[in-house]
Amino acid sequence: MNNFEFKNPTKIIFGKDTIKNIANEIPTNAKVLLLYGGGSIKKNGIYDQVTTALANVDFIEFGGIPANPEYALLMDALKVIKDEKITYLLAVGGGSVIDGTKFLSAAALYEGETPWDILTKNIRTEKGMPFGTVLTLPATGSEMNSGAVITRKETKEKLAMGGPGLFPVFSILDPQVISSIPQRQLANGLMDAFTHVLEQYMTYPVEALLQDRFAESILQTIIEVAPKILKDPTDYKAASNFMWSCTMALNGLIQKGVPTDWAVHAMGHELTALFGIDHARTLAIIAPSHYEFNFDAKKEKLAQYGERVWNITEGTLEEKSKAAIKKTVAFFHEIGIDTKLSDYTKDYEGTAEKIAKRFTDRGWLGLGEHQSLSPDKVEEIVKMAY
Amino acid sequence: MNNFEFKNPTKIIFGKDTIKNIANEIPTNAKVLLLYGGGSIKKNGIYDQVTTALANVDFIEFGGIPANPEYALLMDALKVIKDEKITYLLAVGGGSVIDGTKFLSAAALYEGETPWDILTKNIRTEKGMPFGTVLTLPATGSEMNSGAVITRKETKEKLAMGGPGLFPVFSILDPQVISSIPQRQLANGLMDAFTHVLEQYMTYPVEALLQDRFAESILQTIIEVAPKILKDPTDYKAASNFMWSCTMALNGLIQKGVPTDWAVHAMGHELTALFGIDHARTLAIIAPSHYEFNFDAKKEKLAQYGERVWNITEGTLEEKSKAAIKKTVAFFHEIGIDTKLSDYTKDYEGTAEKIAKRFTDRGWLGLGEHQSLSPDKVEEIVKMAY
Repeated sequence: MNNFEFKNPTKIIFGKDTIKNIANEIPTNAKVLLLYGGGSIKKNGIYDQVTTALANVDFIEFGGIPANPEYALLMDALKVIKDEKITYLLAVGGGSVIDGTKFLSAAALYEGETPWDILTKNIRTEKGMPFGTVLTLPATGSEMNSGAVITRKETKEKLAMGGPGLFPVFSILDPQVISSIPQRQLANGLMDAFTHVLEQYMTYPVEALLQDRFAESILQTIIEVAPKILKDPTDYKAASNFMWSCTMALNGLIQKGVPTDWAVHAMGHELTALFGIDHARTLAIIAPSHYEFNFDAKKEKLAQYGERVWNITEGTLEEKSKAAIKKTVAFFHEIGIDTKLSDYTKDYEGTAEKIAKRFTDRGWLGLGEHQSLSPDKVEEIVKMAY
Repeated sequence: MNNFEFKNPTKIIFGKDTIKNIANEIPTNAKVLLLYGGGSIKKNGIYDQVTTALANVDFIEFGGIPANPEYALLMDALKVIKDEKITYLLAVGGGSVIDGTKFLSAAALYEGETPWDILTKNIRTEKGMPFGTVLTLPATGSEMNSGAVITRKETKEKLAMGGPGLFPVFSILDPQVISSIPQRQLANGLMDAFTHVLEQYMTYPVEALLQDRFAESILQTIIEVAPKILKDPTDYKAASNFMWSCTMALNGLIQKGVPTDWAVHAMGHELTALFGIDHARTLAIIAPSHYEFNFDAKKEKLAQYGERVWNITEGTLEEKSKAAIKKTVAFFHEIGIDTKLSDYTKDYEGTAEKIAKRFTDRGWLGLGEHQSLSPDKVEEIVKMAY
């Protein structure tokens, strides 16, 4: 097991009818900016629940944060924060709204020249403006971690940021919100959380027995609830386990003491930036090719995953590993997610070269747990995913 | 899944040679009281590592905190804290030293008549004196939770306390400390952590799929590493997984959203108070009888545990459940722990009646996940354990 540090101070408030507890968590003298997305919360009743809970809180609103939160729009929100002397942020939404709020939390207290630096110069945020979240879409785990991904349209870039100052103070997780999520978003959430676990698990063994078993626990739970939640999003058993699994998949716990990969995300982000493909679906495009390409480096963990998660008991280590990749692709298809770039766009020729060049330009010379995936290898993996 | 709240702000610093990081975690202007136990840390080198790390820190010492931290002695330490204007506590030890430090953290800021009230009147500590820990004995999980158990010799009582103000600010877990722990303490640690998981798991199903799998993960890991760590405590793989499993067993995570039992601990504590039997061994005495006595209420979970943790695939649900209890007792014996009160004392007659009466006197009318174990049932369970 590798050495590690772990601290996660976010308070989780989980369960039925918990949105009404918001006001208990926000200081009484706070001036709050309520941030949300495209407005679905006004149709499904969540907006009403939130504003009712905020009856005695001084707040204003900023809606319209899109999927893949966009820098220019967030700069408009930052102006509101400064003009209105906001002291506390409340994100009501999925990963995009929460990630956008994290950027604002950092930018609001940033003293450098331009907040864009936070993204391009990898500036860690030690202290941000305090914020809470009401999660409306289980997927990214952003509700209990300190990372965010921000997009800038004009440069077609999608960049990561984070730091210990960016944990939500609290996050409210009411699984009942899942009942109004469209199938496509549910499938995306399942896919996203599943891949988050794989990125922290599908590397090489370091004798971290408990972390491995925790990761496998989340994968097993997602596999168990996926068909149920897609069939009936009002199934509270499935919804609550889905929601808690998404949070645990990326709250930092399972990555402690083990190597992590994240190459699937790095490549996937480029597909979103280039084609606007849903984040989760880019992961389904890249992951199978990535595991095939890096088979020898990952086969021990692939076999262990095959045995424990998919009950593959027959065959050699290599055969189990291959079967595990097949099972994974089949699972993605079962939840309605295509796994080839050509399923999403006809304009895919040249994509691999383009992504490899962007990585080279950015100085990203070695992705993955061994920092060994050079741009030419990235090019091969993306081509395999056409 | 039941509604829950979860917040655990303790910073964990885990791994080889991490004790030297203490000073980074303590405010430079702190006046520190270094608390420890019987002095084994002076023989195994941990005391030297700690004091070297504290070279530039203003600290004084208070050693001699025994197993089952004793109220009268802690009151001596409290006097030192007040007299010396201590602002920060540092516990170097196992669960007893850390629990004692938690009591002091609470007592140092307590404004009521006597700190004994914290224990007898169930006063939750919202804010305690800040403290860190260096764990020398994996077992209780006290290094990453906010609870403590304190003993008062004069009344032969062992009482619990806690509150959100009693999380350690940081805890340093260096698995290398395990190499100098005697076999008896290693076995106690394995037993204690194993039972902590059972108390939060062996109840009835509430469709908390992920929590169940996490609990089973810890049990599986303890079973896997137990023979290795007992054979060779310098085995870092086994030691690191043992240590992290003990922490995760009682840091609050696996109990969230599920019913919990804790009747084994309640009865076990009395055996320690009455006979001075090691805490962990009292759990091994009580647990088998408890599961036999409450078989019908617990058989679904017993069977699931048997299937997933012990690979018991044959038989009816009842047969699997019975086999799971047998496997558990065999595991306790394998790690060298006896499971009957008569193995520890010849003076056991009347114990059951005595414990039942103490529960009645204290107004504890219903233990366990259903609050259904009345003192007369407790009496039966303890008798079964003779």
